[in-house]
Amino acid sequence: MKIAVRRTYYGDRLCFPDPVPGAVVDVRAAHSRMLMVRSSFDREDALAHTERAIPVDLPGVLRDPAGLGELRRLHDWVHQRAHTGDLHEGCTWTSVPKQLGPPIGRPRTVWGMSGNYLRDVPDPGAGAPQHPAQPPNQRGFLKAVSSLAGPHDDIRYPAISRHIVPEIELAAVIGRRCRALSRESAMSAVAGYVVLCDIGARDIGALDNRALDRAKGFDTFAVIGPWFVTADEIPDPHKLRIRAWVNGQLRQDGSTSEMFHDIPEQLCWLSSALTLGPGDVVSTGTPPGPAPIEPGDVLRGEIEGLGVLECTVVAQADADASPYSPEDGAA
Amino acid sequence: MKIAVRRTYYGDRLCFPDPVPGAVVDVRAAHSRMLMVRSSFDREDALAHTERAIPVDLPGVLRDPAGLGELRRLHDWVHQRAHTGDLHEGCTWTSVPKQLGPPIGRPRTVWGMSGNYLRDVPDPGAGAPQHPAQPPNQRGFLKAVSSLAGPHDDIRYPAISRHIVPEIELAAVIGRRCRALSRESAMSAVAGYVVLCDIGARDIGALDNRALDRAKGFDTFAVIGPWFVTADEIPDPHKLRIRAWVNGQLRQDGSTSEMFHDIPEQLCWLSSALTLGPGDVVSTGTPPGPAPIEPGDVLRGEIEGLGVLECTVVAQADADASPYSPEDGAA
Amino acid sequence: MKIAVRRTYYGDRLCFPDPVPGAVVDVRAAHSRMLMVRSSFDREDALAHTERAIPVDLPGVLRDPAGLGELRRLHDWVHQRAHTGDLHEGCTWTSVPKQLGPPIGRPRTVWGMSGNYLRDVPDPGAGAPQHPAQPPNQRGFLKAVSSLAGPHDDIRYPAISRHIVPEIELAAVIGRRCRALSRESAMSAVAGYVVLCDIGARDIGALDNRALDRAKGFDTFAVIGPWFVTADEIPDPHKLRIRAWVNGQLRQDGSTSEMFHDIPEQLCWLSSALTLGPGDVVSTGTPPGPAPIEPGDVLRGEIEGLGVLECTVVAQADADASPYSPEDGAA
Amino acid sequence: MKIAVRRTYYGDRLCFPDPVPGAVVDVRAAHSRMLMVRSSFDREDALAHTERAIPVDLPGVLRDPAGLGELRRLHDWVHQRAHTGDLHEGCTWTSVPKQLGPPIGRPRTVWGMSGNYLRDVPDPGAGAPQHPAQPPNQRGFLKAVSSLAGPHDDIRYPAISRHIVPEIELAAVIGRRCRALSRESAMSAVAGYVVLCDIGARDIGALDNRALDRAKGFDTFAVIGPWFVTADEIPDPHKLRIRAWVNGQLRQDGSTSEMFHDIPEQLCWLSSALTLGPGDVVSTGTPPGPAPIEPGDVLRGEIEGLGVLECTVVAQADADASPYSPEDGAA
Repeated sequence: MKIAVRRTYYGDRLCFPDPVPGAVVDVRAAHSRMLMVRSSFDREDALAHTERAIPVDLPGVLRDPAGLGELRRLHDWVHQRAHTGDLHEGCTWTSVPKQLGPPIGRPRTVWGMSGNYLRDVPDPGAGAPQHPAQPPNQRGFLKAVSSLAGPHDDIRYPAISRHIVPEIELAAVIGRRCRALSRESAMSAVAGYVVLCDIGARDIGALDNRALDRAKGFDTFAVIGPWFVTADEIPDPHKLRIRAWVNGQLRQDGSTSEMFHDIPEQLCWLSSALTLGPGDVVSTGTPPGPAPIEPGDVLRGEIEGLGVLECTVVAQADADASPYSPEDGAA
Repeated sequence: MKIAVRRTYYGDRLCFPDPVPGAVVDVRAAHSRMLMVRSSFDREDALAHTERAIPVDLPGVLRDPAGLGELRRLHDWVHQRAHTGDLHEGCTWTSVPKQLGPPIGRPRTVWGMSGNYLRDVPDPGAGAPQHPAQPPNQRGFLKAVSSLAGPHDDIRYPAISRHIVPEIELAAVIGRRCRALSRESAMSAVAGYVVLCDIGARDIGALDNRALDRAKGFDTFAVIGPWFVTADEIPDPHKLRIRAWVNGQLRQDGSTSEMFHDIPEQLCWLSSALTLGPGDVVSTGTPPGPAPIEPGDVLRGEIEGLGVLECTVVAQADADASPYSPEDGAA
Repeated sequence: MKIAVRRTYYGDRLCFPDPVPGAVVDVRAAHSRMLMVRSSFDREDALAHTERAIPVDLPGVLRDPAGLGELRRLHDWVHQRAHTGDLHEGCTWTSVPKQLGPPIGRPRTVWGMSGNYLRDVPDPGAGAPQHPAQPPNQRGFLKAVSSLAGPHDDIRYPAISRHIVPEIELAAVIGRRCRALSRESAMSAVAGYVVLCDIGARDIGALDNRALDRAKGFDTFAVIGPWFVTADEIPDPHKLRIRAWVNGQLRQDGSTSEMFHDIPEQLCWLSSALTLGPGDVVSTGTPPGPAPIEPGDVLRGEIEGLGVLECTVVAQADADASPYSPEDGAA
Repeated sequence: MKIAVRRTYYGDRLCFPDPVPGAVVDVRAAHSRMLMVRSSFDREDALAHTERAIPVDLPGVLRDPAGLGELRRLHDWVHQRAHTGDLHEGCTWTSVPKQLGPPIGRPRTVWGMSGNYLRDVPDPGAGAPQHPAQPPNQRGFLKAVSSLAGPHDDIRYPAISRHIVPEIELAAVIGRRCRALSRESAMSAVAGYVVLCDIGARDIGALDNRALDRAKGFDTFAVIGPWFVTADEIPDPHKLRIRAWVNGQLRQDGSTSEMFHDIPEQLCWLSSALTLGPGDVVSTGTPPGPAPIEPGDVLRGEIEGLGVLECTVVAQADADASPYSPEDGAA
């Protein structure tokens, strides 16, 4: 099951991106519709029931033990009815890529992993990349939640940097509160996956004594989407092709099988220290190939089974007197 | 200012019916848009601010001393911007008459007045209707709130009656809690007006020893709309032409000037007994001319300055196994 | 299961009145507590889960097919734990009779039945009261929802009346949307029962041509409580002793077995005309004996198994400049 | 004005800690009370008005341009009435230190500054500490929002570390969205201050190649409180005495005047990179003196004008089968 978020003037709406061509199906609206059509609820009762049955964002859905189950039943119904009159326009939003928001709502923490793949693209003539005999220690960092951006948002190239590098990554979304996970139990804590483009200002990182928090925390530096995909759709998250293009040119082309530390290891490592919670995001590192981008570039990232994100890089206007231009909040 | 309610899967939405042809403007959505365009709010902030600034229904707006003022400022802005790109589709709903709900939300009480006009159409040759030397005592009754219907909803002709009569009336909507109003203060308690079609089953009233509560309380027997109009748009509510047609044939054609007891008197009379509150409705009686309707009839009512409601009468299916057919709650 | 409402500055709270002596147990607070103690929920998760699992008022609970079941599970747990530390003060409110509100929240409609018992107390020497050969037609009327009062609120004796009569009645609370009930199905639509004191101003009724709406619609003229009792606790609602006292003197002493039209008949009669909904109230009429009350009187009503309500009658101050004195909303 | 948060089963409640001895005054409850007493609101209206006027948490209050102003008016009223009957028990909570939560709600980001004071306590015989000729570059890091703890919560000593060091710091709370602040405008973006105890596991930091995110992100490693103090109460945040004790022994005793980079510089530095928002926290570094703590220690921190926090260090039970023991969510 895929879950997207559509930004509207009625709030950020959980949506199904796939059943209706050219549109996204509003989850709560469709749920009310289902109650009316299938269970003969009166509209007022249906709306009230939906409001309690379906949380407004993904962390809320995950926090509820029955949350994903309820969405799944709805998703099945929507698929069956996608071509009948039951899902008329009142339950859908026109599919406008720019209107998609981060599908994960507002997590408490977004973790990224450093150095979890080979850093450099090996010489093509030298054979396949070789993992080191001993994998490096795990290292992780927090992405500022304020840096989250939708899968087709513009990336703001900051005025104070000259060295911006995007990294396409597989990110796991945690499904329940968990602490001290074991390798065996770790995957059961993963609710699903999402593509994350982890952007950093390398010159700022150098300036900050290699502390990454500011360097990776600029607004729009955590592009995420296009949708959340539940774990059942991804039989093996460690065998996914992962690619990035800039202006149509392939920059990264790897596989999640190349991670030094796989997802269970990462989750053990983090949860040995702290409690992870529903909706928290763990981004698993990026394969070789990242290279700097410039204003005007178009960045595209894709992970097998998880969809495509595509963003344009724009220079941050130095002189914007009002720092929040209306288009920020487009709807 | 006119305020309508559009029934959607996102709840019953307060709307402005007039600024954009073919559409109704969603009040809360437009308010967020205004904050973003005019005050450079970020979208997230705008939505949060709107949620607190604009109540979800008319009783809520009226209960807030600043409620109508906030809507008025928004209305002015919407009018100025109706033809620019600022009010794009994300803030409007296609105008579909059937989707309009009662503009008054869910009031605590809806009062109707009995015998407040001459009962019979006077002989056309006999000159203008004459008020009696002594007006009759005031009489009022409660309409069941469950009988409210939108201005273009179907009227359900009940299976147990053979004598259904609709009466078009001017209804006042109370703007604040008030008790023991004086004739002088009474009008200040009126926030605005709405057309109300007060329908009754006269045979049921007779059966019930002339108690009107059940006779006038059938589902859909209080059609109300098309919109709420603020008092400032109606300089003299006692000089409004009021008409009703059935199948295009004029049945009622009177003026609110013909009431025996004007609105201040009615409000004094009611508030001498009980507290009226924001959103309560007082329907002021109907001029001469009401006549029975039958399934298949089309009923139309209009009051000068308050708009038109139009409904089709449908026989209540005796055999509807599921009493709540999906189309009840269409959106 | 008994459900009360405690009026607090945190809203009107559903409460269990019985498990903890001297206190009422807050339903939502106890639910969160249960999730933490029994299911090891983190507090934040527990609060979020409770907010969605437990509606804020009785109509909301009844509207949810699983609503009463969830409350019942909680009630069992509360009973088991009432004497342990699990239910500490954070989940209870001191029991203050004046703070109890109407346990039914805000229903859409409150119906009363007229003439459903013998009107006059028969001559004590004449033997037992005799039902007429033919029961009178059913008659019902709407109580203004604005007239609802809590079970220990003061009754305001209106300035404009000199003939106020209270009538103690058994009231049924509807549990689901229903229309066209049959005699057989009717009782399944009843969720539970409550004591209702239906007060009327008989002189005002006479003045209004016997229309009861205003006469029975004065503020505080529908005292209701002390709690809602689920139907399973009342094996036969037609065999309940029902009594009223004024100043300690017995005025009414009857049995619900004396109704002319029993509850199924009343529900058939109403639902043949209109849809009843969750939380709607049908008050079933009063046995013989009601007599006028005066300011200063203390009124007490009791129905077997449903508890006791007790109110003082106070003269409505003619001169209260501010009609809403702070003590109205005491908390 | 001081604002605390009391954790209750009715949610995390904003409170005034000071006007009533032995109690904290619930902000929303007192606001409703004020509306009833001062403005003669009916209780139902007061609750509805309060719900819209007073956001539920500090970020919400700050996001609203009128938010702090509304609280200030209320605070004045509460102070005047603290000794009258107007603030009876229904508006207060018993003051129980353990029940205080982080006063800042759930911010998007919590930033800490590294190396912003002299690291080592200078030799007492060597004269006053000397600032270096050239202050070091600014460095900052994100604290995981999941690590926030209340001012009297237990600090969990992690099983995987042997070197835990607490640092008492002055933290600024941001009052509005801001980007690219200038030195002149920076202080206008600060809404107020709070004491923050920034705890870190130094051995884990070393293990993680000096990345601090995990080392400083353990649960309970950001103790914050006891309350938020508005900026107007702190005429000069750069002249505050700041002290820490462990088991009654003074460990840190400095002044905020010793910062290398003052608050405006820090805000310029952060906001040159990213947008800060209402409720975001910037912790400004710690004066010399921090030393390791052990399970069983009692940690106390105080900043002039901002109050005292005091916590006990407890060993994290290795074997807790259920990772969320009921006492986590005490109420």
